[in-house]
Amino acid sequence: MREAFHDQLDGIFVDLAEMCGQVEVAVNRATAALLTGDAGIAEQVISADREIDTNRERVEDNAFALLSLQQPVAGDLRTVVAALRMVSELERMGDLSVHVAKIARLRVPNIAVPESIRETMVRMAETAEDMVRRVKAIIADRDVEAAIELGRDDEIMDQLRRKSFAELLGDDWAHGVEAAVDIALLGRYYERIADHAVSVANRVVFVVTGEMVSRRDN
Amino acid sequence: MREAFHDQLDGIFVDLAEMCGQVEVAVNRATAALLTGDAGIAEQVISADREIDTNRERVEDNAFALLSLQQPVAGDLRTVVAALRMVSELERMGDLSVHVAKIARLRVPNIAVPESIRETMVRMAETAEDMVRRVKAIIADRDVEAAIELGRDDEIMDQLRRKSFAELLGDDWAHGVEAAVDIALLGRYYERIADHAVSVANRVVFVVTGEMVSRRDN
Repeated sequence: MREAFHDQLDGIFVDLAEMCGQVEVAVNRATAALLTGDAGIAEQVISADREIDTNRERVEDNAFALLSLQQPVAGDLRTVVAALRMVSELERMGDLSVHVAKIARLRVPNIAVPESIRETMVRMAETAEDMVRRVKAIIADRDVEAAIELGRDDEIMDQLRRKSFAELLGDDWAHGVEAAVDIALLGRYYERIADHAVSVANRVVFVVTGEMVSRRDN
Repeated sequence: MREAFHDQLDGIFVDLAEMCGQVEVAVNRATAALLTGDAGIAEQVISADREIDTNRERVEDNAFALLSLQQPVAGDLRTVVAALRMVSELERMGDLSVHVAKIARLRVPNIAVPESIRETMVRMAETAEDMVRRVKAIIADRDVEAAIELGRDDEIMDQLRRKSFAELLGDDWAHGVEAAVDIALLGRYYERIADHAVSVANRVVFVVTGEMVSRRDN
């Protein structure tokens, strides 16, 4: 019974890591669509989100089955509930990638990101994608050290967000209101992807150690 | 045993309704701070968020205790897990109110919302607050009809968001980039509060009927 339980639980974590890989692809493509103004890539992100949603449902069904049939207690119970939360966050990260793709699509044939702020946006996008990639490994390997390190790197995203605001609101900004609003919302979406990545990593720490990592609210 | 279970479950729903009341106050005060530029009210929202977080922890502890000690199955299990999700969403709605309050505080002694777009922002804020108020009653009464009606009203928020963008991006906008960015982010925060309200209402439908309400992603 216990062995079957742990096999099934491992299966759920394999599915979570796979979903995280799908989110990584979504973030990567959404950024590509954004920086190139390619409507086709944006559409791919939007339509592929259905697969992430389908995977969420499968993970949820499996987690419920595990709770119902195996009646875990203590640490095992907390692990299954943590998995349910992780799956919600991964789905949300997919939704946020769709939001980025939709801004890209809205501006086609133009590019939403003006040249002067491109470097900052690229760094935000790369930071978000890098965090998602690392979370995938953290889930797969239950890697507590890497998870704690990820939490520290969240500060990089905060700095980039402040930098983007300084650029938007500086006297040099020559791209008008529409581009500024796009950049502010894109920054919010990438920041939230990073927040969720940290939150998922913290849940892995909790699953392994039983200790909650204290978190800031964003 | 079953009776004790249902008493404890009722207690969790009482706590959820109370948290929703705290969120309602937070949304109301954040809006007041925003429209008056009152830093003191903004601070109240920010510091009161700790109480919402404390309540979240209590609800989570109670829900875990219920899962561990009573080992519910089928519908009862799904209800407890739904409660765990509702509590996360309510906490998040509190965080979003804090975001609104922080934009208000950032612009003191000025007011972040220019006169020309004030009416639209007031309607967004009132819509969000009204939805939170109704969710409180929906949780307390397990009112499926009211929950389904709330989902329909989400369209009002979408219309207001589109209206605010039309105003921001129109030729008449004379308030510059900073105010536009503030309005775009504020709109996003109120919209997300409304989304979470709908999601919490949908979970009440699920708890009562066993049927998931299909949802859009925002």
